Amino acid sequence: MSWNTFGRVLRFTTWGESHGPALGAVLDGCPPGLALDESMIQPFMDARKPGQSKFTTQRKEPDQVKILSGVFEGPDGQQRTTGTPISLMIENVDQRSKDYSEVANSYRPGHADYAYDAKYGFRDYRGGGRSSARETAARVAAGAVARLIMPDVKITAYVSQIGNDRIDPAAIDLTEIGNNPFFCPDAAAAKRWEDLVDGARKAGSSLGAVVECVAEGVPAGWGAPVYAKLDSDLASGMMSINAVKGVEIGDGFGAAALSGEQNADPMRAGDNGPTFEANHAGGISGGISTGQPVVCRVAFKPTSSILTPVDTISRDGENMQIRTKGRHDPCVGIRGTPVVEAMMALVLADHKMLHRAQCG
Amino acid sequence: MSWNTFGRVLRFTTWGESHGPALGAVLDGCPPGLALDESMIQPFMDARKPGQSKFTTQRKEPDQVKILSGVFEGPDGQQRTTGTPISLMIENVDQRSKDYSEVANSYRPGHADYAYDAKYGFRDYRGGGRSSARETAARVAAGAVARLIMPDVKITAYVSQIGNDRIDPAAIDLTEIGNNPFFCPDAAAAKRWEDLVDGARKAGSSLGAVVECVAEGVPAGWGAPVYAKLDSDLASGMMSINAVKGVEIGDGFGAAALSGEQNADPMRAGDNGPTFEANHAGGISGGISTGQPVVCRVAFKPTSSILTPVDTISRDGENMQIRTKGRHDPCVGIRGTPVVEAMMALVLADHKMLHRAQCG
Amino acid sequence: MSWNTFGRVLRFTTWGESHGPALGAVLDGCPPGLALDESMIQPFMDARKPGQSKFTTQRKEPDQVKILSGVFEGPDGQQRTTGTPISLMIENVDQRSKDYSEVANSYRPGHADYAYDAKYGFRDYRGGGRSSARETAARVAAGAVARLIMPDVKITAYVSQIGNDRIDPAAIDLTEIGNNPFFCPDAAAAKRWEDLVDGARKAGSSLGAVVECVAEGVPAGWGAPVYAKLDSDLASGMMSINAVKGVEIGDGFGAAALSGEQNADPMRAGDNGPTFEANHAGGISGGISTGQPVVCRVAFKPTSSILTPVDTISRDGENMQIRTKGRHDPCVGIRGTPVVEAMMALVLADHKMLHRAQCG
Amino acid sequence: MSWNTFGRVLRFTTWGESHGPALGAVLDGCPPGLALDESMIQPFMDARKPGQSKFTTQRKEPDQVKILSGVFEGPDGQQRTTGTPISLMIENVDQRSKDYSEVANSYRPGHADYAYDAKYGFRDYRGGGRSSARETAARVAAGAVARLIMPDVKITAYVSQIGNDRIDPAAIDLTEIGNNPFFCPDAAAAKRWEDLVDGARKAGSSLGAVVECVAEGVPAGWGAPVYAKLDSDLASGMMSINAVKGVEIGDGFGAAALSGEQNADPMRAGDNGPTFEANHAGGISGGISTGQPVVCRVAFKPTSSILTPVDTISRDGENMQIRTKGRHDPCVGIRGTPVVEAMMALVLADHKMLHRAQCG
Repeated sequence: MSWNTFGRVLRFTTWGESHGPALGAVLDGCPPGLALDESMIQPFMDARKPGQSKFTTQRKEPDQVKILSGVFEGPDGQQRTTGTPISLMIENVDQRSKDYSEVANSYRPGHADYAYDAKYGFRDYRGGGRSSARETAARVAAGAVARLIMPDVKITAYVSQIGNDRIDPAAIDLTEIGNNPFFCPDAAAAKRWEDLVDGARKAGSSLGAVVECVAEGVPAGWGAPVYAKLDSDLASGMMSINAVKGVEIGDGFGAAALSGEQNADPMRAGDNGPTFEANHAGGISGGISTGQPVVCRVAFKPTSSILTPVDTISRDGENMQIRTKGRHDPCVGIRGTPVVEAMMALVLADHKMLHRAQCG
Repeated sequence: MSWNTFGRVLRFTTWGESHGPALGAVLDGCPPGLALDESMIQPFMDARKPGQSKFTTQRKEPDQVKILSGVFEGPDGQQRTTGTPISLMIENVDQRSKDYSEVANSYRPGHADYAYDAKYGFRDYRGGGRSSARETAARVAAGAVARLIMPDVKITAYVSQIGNDRIDPAAIDLTEIGNNPFFCPDAAAAKRWEDLVDGARKAGSSLGAVVECVAEGVPAGWGAPVYAKLDSDLASGMMSINAVKGVEIGDGFGAAALSGEQNADPMRAGDNGPTFEANHAGGISGGISTGQPVVCRVAFKPTSSILTPVDTISRDGENMQIRTKGRHDPCVGIRGTPVVEAMMALVLADHKMLHRAQCG
Repeated sequence: MSWNTFGRVLRFTTWGESHGPALGAVLDGCPPGLALDESMIQPFMDARKPGQSKFTTQRKEPDQVKILSGVFEGPDGQQRTTGTPISLMIENVDQRSKDYSEVANSYRPGHADYAYDAKYGFRDYRGGGRSSARETAARVAAGAVARLIMPDVKITAYVSQIGNDRIDPAAIDLTEIGNNPFFCPDAAAAKRWEDLVDGARKAGSSLGAVVECVAEGVPAGWGAPVYAKLDSDLASGMMSINAVKGVEIGDGFGAAALSGEQNADPMRAGDNGPTFEANHAGGISGGISTGQPVVCRVAFKPTSSILTPVDTISRDGENMQIRTKGRHDPCVGIRGTPVVEAMMALVLADHKMLHRAQCG
Repeated sequence: MSWNTFGRVLRFTTWGESHGPALGAVLDGCPPGLALDESMIQPFMDARKPGQSKFTTQRKEPDQVKILSGVFEGPDGQQRTTGTPISLMIENVDQRSKDYSEVANSYRPGHADYAYDAKYGFRDYRGGGRSSARETAARVAAGAVARLIMPDVKITAYVSQIGNDRIDPAAIDLTEIGNNPFFCPDAAAAKRWEDLVDGARKAGSSLGAVVECVAEGVPAGWGAPVYAKLDSDLASGMMSINAVKGVEIGDGFGAAALSGEQNADPMRAGDNGPTFEANHAGGISGGISTGQPVVCRVAFKPTSSILTPVDTISRDGENMQIRTKGRHDPCVGIRGTPVVEAMMALVLADHKMLHRAQCG
């Protein structure tokens, strides 16, 4: 099956291939009256767009977003959402005309090539077609709109690990995130990663990464037990991002090694509702937000496209080796950071609206 | 919102509270003509049911499942699915009449008590009400039917870690799983866990766990990119299980530390289609099955109900301490094992049918 | 496919066969805190239940509804909805043990027998199995809960035509509806229908009917353009009722014969918002309620079960004739009236909640 | 709420306003490998497009469809569907720059103006914005693709009534449909309608219409009881078309006036499965196709945009009159004909795939 829609009452549908004329998202269910023009989306596109440093792919895409529907000039002259579907389009401009015969006729290990062929019998092999991470540009556009639905929620993601090199939790300074090409909140780690990532790139290799995301300002009560739990929907949304292989809420796998006392988040009376003395739960209990920051960790595998030759087979079933030439990110997790933020925003905004539906 | 339905074309809806008269599942979309009677479901219920060893809760529930609809005697005299909704009901028989005033008037840390109150303003506090893991009995019943849809798929889950104690991967013997009360495939680890779990129980503490699940026999081509990816739906389904805080596919977070060469799953020509020389991907690429075993790991936090006092607040906002008396699992991950298998079955069967819808 | 769930955020799933042990509905997404016990549902069940006059089937079913989940005693001692799924069960008590061999081995024209066999290859033929109108008992139970979500909305349905005999619109007196066994608001017509329906019954024949339904108190603004329009969802809901073959909103097919001036619903300024000088639109424009009464008309075909022999074929493909013995309504439209009200309530309550989700 | 997606496994989402830069549809779930290029869609667009005779609006829109994703050159050089979402875009080129102040500040009776304002507090009033029937161009594009999924199904719609003037059923000649500007299968009626429609246009009035649609070649077994019945989904789809106020399956409201014997569709043994001696049911029993032609009738109200002044109110709540100037269809039902065909195709293709999902 093909299933390109995400969300329950705030729903978005994405379309487009890596080397087609354009890609986009249709965001449906957005509340009316929100101020929205392209300039409110573009900064998020720019954070994700390729070609901004030597540590990401050199494909040059301006990733200029166009709003084709769903907004209209309000009485105050400001363009505002009308409550109808918002069609967002991004044109592809830097598809290289090149010889695709190798990738057309063989399967790159780690890529979706073989799986797509097994499923559909046929695939757009140019740049990975629909399975390319270019699809995530459309999510980032939709996510920028989702943020406007929750002005009191602040979402921040950063890279906490590349390869085996982790940041020092004690050194986290969120203001550092924008100061380096890695979305890294630890200046010393960012410095180390320059050599690490550049080394992998030069070696024709690639690296995995972990991205952490925190949403502050989420009130207690969002979530839909038991099959649209806030954490279930986050898990689904994050796992749908290209190259993601693991999702944790709060302490995640670390919680498996704790005792009940260690893992408890004790509560104390506070002036404005309860306070918590820890946040092992990552802000979610029983699938519902508790009012603490919502915390999610996402594991990205290393980029599958590498210059190092790997054993594979051709479409005809012959053994061969393949080296993936072309322009690729040596570490896809880096540019995954704005995508993780976007998915967090889309899940939370959907649940804000779902909560309002049932509980007023 | 309340959202108690899971699945896309094979859909199930669960209902019921821990201390209500009954709980159940309605499974809709099941193919017609499958042989089905209660005896085919009961063994899975029995694997999950409480009170079978001193390492699980002492609540005595027979968890006898009744089929109320959706089956009829076929021409051969065998009861078979008719293609209409299958209503499965399990009566609660061992709800203890006891004094619930403490849990009614305060919030147990780690439980959904506070979150439910924040959301709904009101909750059935008896045994956790709807947020109780008794809900998972209904999933196990539905999962037993889902297995019948895929007779060629074999699903096996086991506990690979309790607290800090992991099994030895080299010692895995799947035939051991049924020989100990921990669903443990490593006889030596199972032996160690007796003291570990009993110690936690006696100390009024609890333990987390990791459950691994493998599905063999899944053909290449199941999955629905990009928002119903097979791994996204598994992540959603697993994360919806009570106490789960993390989900990994294949190498999961371990993949973040690998290089592209290390993480590749090289392919070789085989007599019956391609073979793979590794399975870091856990059988899923681009959201679609590759024909390799589908591998998933699930982290359970330690049981939140512990006898050790924890700081909390009352509903009135006063500071207090709470000890959770009553009958509880010292390690919920253990009985989570059949639930993980059930969710794997339900996700896979749904995707088998989705694939057939689009690709014939 | 089997698809037994209706609704978008207020969703219900029904299950059960005519001659199985029970049938029921699971209603999910209901707001928390609503006073609800069985006594608030039973009057609606009683209005639909069979065997109350000689003009309906003589099957004796008490249609006693049981609430199995989703309610709990509130602080005031009143049982209230908790926001979790409400499981409603109705036991079948008057299934006649009889010889079903004829209906098992042949196809009753107008019934779903042949279509079910063509689809599923197999069917529960006792009393029509899943295709029996007994399924509508579950809708009526769910609908009774839906009404509680909209205390300001008043829903009234009545029979406006049986066979070729229409009520006199000028003679409509809604207080008459409960005074006759036909839900007829025109006392003179009700008198005539006694002979009409009794005559059909005695002749081994049956009659069609038209049911009209009016919902007052619906505020302007409910509805979800363009594919969940309020009228689209009403059309879907009404057409899903057994034996229904047509649905109209407002003037319906009559509007096709009007000119634009005749069909306009002119507006005038009123003290409490606009007033309308006509309601050809049936209270819906562009798929959204206008604040006028929502008006729907529903056509029921004559009962397909008749004693008069009809040409048909056996399962083996042999020509034969069939007479449908057993207990049947001579005019299913009559007992369809409470079902039409229930579907109106379920659609409107869903849209009240959807509107709140998007527009606050 | 805004809900712009239709379908269950074959799903499409439309976007765009009457006077925005473009409108479109994203069709998701389409089977892979179908030959598809723009030339296979354009003839259906041309059948619906405006400005082709004096009996429709004079707005000149080429309605040129562009395929932006979801197709790729197959091994045979033919462009084919890949199984990924198909993005279809139609640019608006003939939006007139004009003074919209009257429609911006008042409510046109029969239009969605007031309802949209009541719901969203704000609307794109240019040409009706999202509530304009221009949205149906996107459905026609999607419907053209849906037809390719069912090459054996032949769908034909025609106008059977304009105003009070009905075609003669005995005179139906489907080859006539393309010979007149009314999609009329009765040449004599088409001749009469020239004066009828032209007269309404000149009088500043408008006319309603009835469209009938027949799908031949649908096998027995499509449909999804009980809430996605084939007839329920048709009712929902047809009622979602702008200006539609009624939907009938088979004899529809006429069936209400028949006796059970008259309404029966007797069956006889045939060489290739059963034959039916009548089709009162319109090819659907119990929500499932019977193998007979699927027959649907759809009532369109007269165009609400008329030059004749009608009483209304301003946004400020003042009484006033309004005449709707601009370019409008004197009878929207005419151009609704290709839209009815498109919705029939989309519903049937979805059910073909749903049936395959469950029953293989």
